[in-house]
Amino acid sequence: MDGRITPDWIALDWGTSNLRGWAMQGSAVLARARSADGMGSLEKGGYEAALEALVKGWEVTPDTPVIACGMVGSRQGWTEAPYRTVPCTPLSEAMVAAPTNVFDVRIVPGLRQNNPADVMRGEETQIAGFLSLNRNWDGVICLPGTHTKWVQVSAGEVVSFQTYMTGELFALLTDHSVLRHSLTGEGWEAEAFADAVSDSMSKPEKLAARLFAIRADDLVHGMPPARSRARLSGLLIGAELAAARAYWLGMNVAIVGATELASAYEEALRQQGVPATVADAERMTLAGLTEAYRQLEHAT
Amino acid sequence: MDGRITPDWIALDWGTSNLRGWAMQGSAVLARARSADGMGSLEKGGYEAALEALVKGWEVTPDTPVIACGMVGSRQGWTEAPYRTVPCTPLSEAMVAAPTNVFDVRIVPGLRQNNPADVMRGEETQIAGFLSLNRNWDGVICLPGTHTKWVQVSAGEVVSFQTYMTGELFALLTDHSVLRHSLTGEGWEAEAFADAVSDSMSKPEKLAARLFAIRADDLVHGMPPARSRARLSGLLIGAELAAARAYWLGMNVAIVGATELASAYEEALRQQGVPATVADAERMTLAGLTEAYRQLEHAT
Repeated sequence: MDGRITPDWIALDWGTSNLRGWAMQGSAVLARARSADGMGSLEKGGYEAALEALVKGWEVTPDTPVIACGMVGSRQGWTEAPYRTVPCTPLSEAMVAAPTNVFDVRIVPGLRQNNPADVMRGEETQIAGFLSLNRNWDGVICLPGTHTKWVQVSAGEVVSFQTYMTGELFALLTDHSVLRHSLTGEGWEAEAFADAVSDSMSKPEKLAARLFAIRADDLVHGMPPARSRARLSGLLIGAELAAARAYWLGMNVAIVGATELASAYEEALRQQGVPATVADAERMTLAGLTEAYRQLEHAT
Repeated sequence: MDGRITPDWIALDWGTSNLRGWAMQGSAVLARARSADGMGSLEKGGYEAALEALVKGWEVTPDTPVIACGMVGSRQGWTEAPYRTVPCTPLSEAMVAAPTNVFDVRIVPGLRQNNPADVMRGEETQIAGFLSLNRNWDGVICLPGTHTKWVQVSAGEVVSFQTYMTGELFALLTDHSVLRHSLTGEGWEAEAFADAVSDSMSKPEKLAARLFAIRADDLVHGMPPARSRARLSGLLIGAELAAARAYWLGMNVAIVGATELASAYEEALRQQGVPATVADAERMTLAGLTEAYRQLEHAT
């Protein structure tokens, strides 16, 4: 072994803010790379160079398959990979080739639902990854994030899904609203989170009033920031759970997400008597891209 | 008349973003002035100069009474005018003097409620103005804005109140969230607003899902921006009305606000069978400051 990395194929998770890549041999990871060249910071013509920069330490030819998922396939991305319509399997052999002669890039299409209108890009790959590791699994997958998805899965297909702006609301309120003055520093109070989930689930319509109460409780009673932050998270997640009740009540639930956020959802669901399986988001993405690669190899 | 403006007193509405002043003779306006020197852009030492700049065309002595309301009296303002606790009259003779020898500035204190914790600064003056023009009025005053207040008024006192972050949420979602891509341009569809109010009031817990649906409806069905904007406003105001039901149901309601926003609230309340009186916010502020000036004159 001369230390050179020669992947069979390359996996890419190309989102709005970041680009992550893995040099792969079958389902084994040879190397990882990461950059800030997300869709949000790239022009149409910049994707090829961003990918070259990412893989520059690896032996890659124009024939090395590169499988990409995420916002890279949106209308504002490298090239549009039109949504497939649910109900359907999370992946299809029909991926969309990116316009480049330097790489053999295939983009995984996102999914859309016509009524109620909804869309996802990237989550379909995580769902495929979860199903590849949990064959014949039926139930509901919750994917917490900026735009949290609740996805009903049956017989290997995505049947329906619903998106909640919970994560984006949390970020906007924390960074830009009057509440930011009461959310300084770090810290978390688990009991305040649990109470807020409970309050919000029992009267979800009180949300807009309870949000300002976080600021008022600080001004009037000096509520500490760690309690305020946990309370804000609990109020928003509680309101989401109240709205998504049909998705999780009496269902087999899996959470695919980053550690801390997935734990918060797990805790909130446990409060409602619903045990949930938790799976790491990055691992599911990689498993899903691996599944897409297998389907591609099988098809050719 | 030599064209010089010699006010008996000066009225100031000194908020976070703007400073507005009126040269007054009793309750008559001699002149108006306005600047962008709001609390948010001033250091502690900058208030005196900001006021000098505002009134520089007027004949003002260190004995001319200047009555100010708004965020100028917050902890981050010129000097803190500690909250008075409800139930209480909206105004008190006990105003707080600003630290300056150039002007005789008195700041109107805000109001606080201990349980549930809540605060207001500026609205107490509008409420006093409304009551000065509507003697013996009992009922609920809704003051739509960045932080909308619902205020229960009885026998000349503020009995209780509740704040909703509806306006700030609308601004954050319009300016910073993924929805901004679907809210470009101007325009408004009244029917979409009415439908959204109705949807949101019947199932207010669905809010976080319905917000993302605005984006998804655009991506999947090409929903026009004017409809998206009216829908966003309707969803947020509908959720607020659902939460504030105890405040308006079967009550005598007045709305104090800027024209377009007050009209939206009036329309939403009319849908619920509640007719509301609408009063202009600036006029109420000036009437309230005039009432504060009268009380000051009466006391001295």
